[in-house]
Amino acid sequence: MTDRYASFVQSGAGRALVKRLGLPDPPRLRRHNPGDPLLPGPVLLGAATGGRLADPVAAILTAAGVDVRTGTGTAPPAAGRDDSAAADGPTAGHGAAAAADGPAGRDERAGNGGAPAGGGTSARFGALVYDATGITDSTGLRQLYDFFHPQARAVLPSGRVIVLGTPPAECGSPREATAQRALEGLTRSIGKEFGRGVTAQLVHVTATGDAGTPTSLEATLRFLLSGRSAYVSGQVVRVGTGPAVVPADWNRPLAGQVVLVTGAARGIGAAVARVLARDGAQVVALDVPAAGDALAAVVNEIGGTAVQLDLTTADAPTRLADHLAERHGRVDVVVHNAGITRDKTLGRMDADRWDAVLDVNLSSQERINDVLLERELIPEGGRLVAVSSIAGIAGNRGQTNYATSKAGVIGLVDSLAPALAGRGISVNAVAPGFIETRLTARIPLVVREAGRRMNSLAQGGLPVDVAETIGWLGWPASGAVSGNVVRVCGQSLLGA
Amino acid sequence: MTDRYASFVQSGAGRALVKRLGLPDPPRLRRHNPGDPLLPGPVLLGAATGGRLADPVAAILTAAGVDVRTGTGTAPPAAGRDDSAAADGPTAGHGAAAAADGPAGRDERAGNGGAPAGGGTSARFGALVYDATGITDSTGLRQLYDFFHPQARAVLPSGRVIVLGTPPAECGSPREATAQRALEGLTRSIGKEFGRGVTAQLVHVTATGDAGTPTSLEATLRFLLSGRSAYVSGQVVRVGTGPAVVPADWNRPLAGQVVLVTGAARGIGAAVARVLARDGAQVVALDVPAAGDALAAVVNEIGGTAVQLDLTTADAPTRLADHLAERHGRVDVVVHNAGITRDKTLGRMDADRWDAVLDVNLSSQERINDVLLERELIPEGGRLVAVSSIAGIAGNRGQTNYATSKAGVIGLVDSLAPALAGRGISVNAVAPGFIETRLTARIPLVVREAGRRMNSLAQGGLPVDVAETIGWLGWPASGAVSGNVVRVCGQSLLGA
Repeated sequence: MTDRYASFVQSGAGRALVKRLGLPDPPRLRRHNPGDPLLPGPVLLGAATGGRLADPVAAILTAAGVDVRTGTGTAPPAAGRDDSAAADGPTAGHGAAAAADGPAGRDERAGNGGAPAGGGTSARFGALVYDATGITDSTGLRQLYDFFHPQARAVLPSGRVIVLGTPPAECGSPREATAQRALEGLTRSIGKEFGRGVTAQLVHVTATGDAGTPTSLEATLRFLLSGRSAYVSGQVVRVGTGPAVVPADWNRPLAGQVVLVTGAARGIGAAVARVLARDGAQVVALDVPAAGDALAAVVNEIGGTAVQLDLTTADAPTRLADHLAERHGRVDVVVHNAGITRDKTLGRMDADRWDAVLDVNLSSQERINDVLLERELIPEGGRLVAVSSIAGIAGNRGQTNYATSKAGVIGLVDSLAPALAGRGISVNAVAPGFIETRLTARIPLVVREAGRRMNSLAQGGLPVDVAETIGWLGWPASGAVSGNVVRVCGQSLLGA
Repeated sequence: MTDRYASFVQSGAGRALVKRLGLPDPPRLRRHNPGDPLLPGPVLLGAATGGRLADPVAAILTAAGVDVRTGTGTAPPAAGRDDSAAADGPTAGHGAAAAADGPAGRDERAGNGGAPAGGGTSARFGALVYDATGITDSTGLRQLYDFFHPQARAVLPSGRVIVLGTPPAECGSPREATAQRALEGLTRSIGKEFGRGVTAQLVHVTATGDAGTPTSLEATLRFLLSGRSAYVSGQVVRVGTGPAVVPADWNRPLAGQVVLVTGAARGIGAAVARVLARDGAQVVALDVPAAGDALAAVVNEIGGTAVQLDLTTADAPTRLADHLAERHGRVDVVVHNAGITRDKTLGRMDADRWDAVLDVNLSSQERINDVLLERELIPEGGRLVAVSSIAGIAGNRGQTNYATSKAGVIGLVDSLAPALAGRGISVNAVAPGFIETRLTARIPLVVREAGRRMNSLAQGGLPVDVAETIGWLGWPASGAVSGNVVRVCGQSLLGA
């Protein structure tokens, strides 16, 4: 469960050797601790001409205590070093939508490139955030270059790059849809290029309804900027129109929520139970009776309650619904984490392996959802969060059963999200990549090392990274996020 | 431009060494030659209970001269060895929709697995084709196991696995949409598992309109079964309702069509010109004046005509339109292949590199499309085929400009396809992975070897593989295929 190579690399002797030999250089990722500021430095906020989001974003960030700089990219003074020096523009709220189309003020650093470096002195922004909604034609994409090129080295380690766009399907012309779709090529390349734990995302913000208001966007921006999203990179997140309820305290975004976590006795499930309890949830932790002791330990640690139940039995959904109805009267967030693997190539796979994996990982989720929804135990503002897998996206040798079940989970999200939008219930999934658990620790060394390093962050993720992502999707404030499958994979090379 | 390792592996001494050391084992892929039968052996056709496509598919294949077997998987006699032995079922046209839900007739080979093997005696089918449209719930996915498990070793080298499904967005219930989406996990896993040049695809066939008829599906089935699709695997292809015109001769599916190919002087573009001319097209080959000699050589070889034009000049679209109008009166198929790279990390990239790549690879395509469409030079039944890239899907370090332009091409397909459906014009793209060209030959050895081997076929593709795929998308018979981005990447591990 430990990445000894990463520990070594982060030591003094290790650093020297890594540099000398050109070995993979996994950075220590910034992770969330309650009370942390959102970012380790100021945000540089830019916008293409005519963008609709820079002002609301500036308002959100400023209210969140972030130091917001605007303009075309003149670097601010090094954070924490010379804060009294004159900033180069208004700090927030106005001017944010200024066009990034002129060369004025751009500092020339064409010679020092975007290659990963061990924290050069030019890195001074916690995040670069760009409102690209104003780009309506491919020729307008040049504005991206004008904003990002001078700042390619100016992002602090574990900093963030966020580009905001319009969902292509909502665009008014093929030209606009084409340009908006092009943004994805930029953010995915930046994720692979910037290094040092910097992540890059594209956020598609709907232009319909009340969307684009601070309320609907705030949860997603806070998640993506914070250490909560340490292992999420290269993703496209869609923010729509669902109702969002801002918490009284952003350090307890799940305060008062009743959360069910299946498969909670160990691994990712136990991390989910811990993180959600830390964030204020009343956790109902479920696992099979055989895992009773481990489940009890988790529950005692976090002050939740335990349910021992085999989800594949015929009466499990009803028994679970009865339990939730009697004890809590409802369940606000359902985290379908329980899952198994039974790997074999298809020719060697007996039918029991197929059936068990499909039933635990997919069909039992459907049966539980149906009963909970039919009995209206999931109230308006409820959240379904399922666990898919990178194998469900890309397929995997020896996992026809597992990949089929996890691809089905994506179908469940795609189909249930619109079906439940009218009830104010969001449906999303996470798709973990290589996560350091008891299971991955058993993988042979060479395969394990390949899995760990073949991503933009050059390391495996931790269960807490998956848990934080699930937590965000479960927040009352995340109602505008539905129908998403968010990979927690450090932008793994693997894909479909 | 040659893969010496693959040649070595395919030699006698190489084979022995590869087996001994467990080295990558790139198979020799079956490629198309005019007059070839579609497949090297019979098709085993199965269907889930209630499927709507098995009968039309059986009719298409039988008419195409394919030996169609049906049932739950009793293997036929070895092809070419004992053809007089009794077959195990009706050969076509009826019984194809029988449920694959019983164990009867399944041969037991659970012990010999699906691992790649050097052509075992059990491999007797040219393709396994399964109509999964009848699966309306995750519990019905078991039928996939029942069909594929006993045949996992029964597919001939360079054989085909095709699963036919319903587009999840068209499904009547979340349960059905979930099960249909799950199919993708199966086909992608099979593509990674079966080895020996076997490819696997999921074909989503619309249930609306006239779709599902032999006419709309035939082109896609012929392409995917044939050697034309040698380097296409792990894809999801959507077949919709556009009008399809069946050719008089399937060996000349582009007979009489006027085809424009940009960037035709060398590499992939030259291969496109050759393949499309071979298939009956009148090719108008375009390239910049500086490539005039190479362009002339291509044109002389194939009997086409040459246009020397720099597409980035302001009057290029008009001059091109004038030329096409005067010489041909129309252009049936436009292949936007011209493209450039100017790689640098974003911090080191000068503005000229950004602008040139975006203009050549994306904006010029848009300008040309606009003029050709406005002047109605692309008639009903016309085809736009663009070249995207795996970098446009996954992003790439050092290619922010290129990836942005190629992601934009995907947006162009997504947005123009519905916009032009009413005019009967289809819009699609190919996204090549690692293709052996002059350019890839210059990549340093280790990086080149990684790119070549990191896919399910353990080798790079050839320009002809991209050309064949473009050709299929250009056929008059492919009118039901629009809005697709088809990767020609051997199911590369790389993805988004």
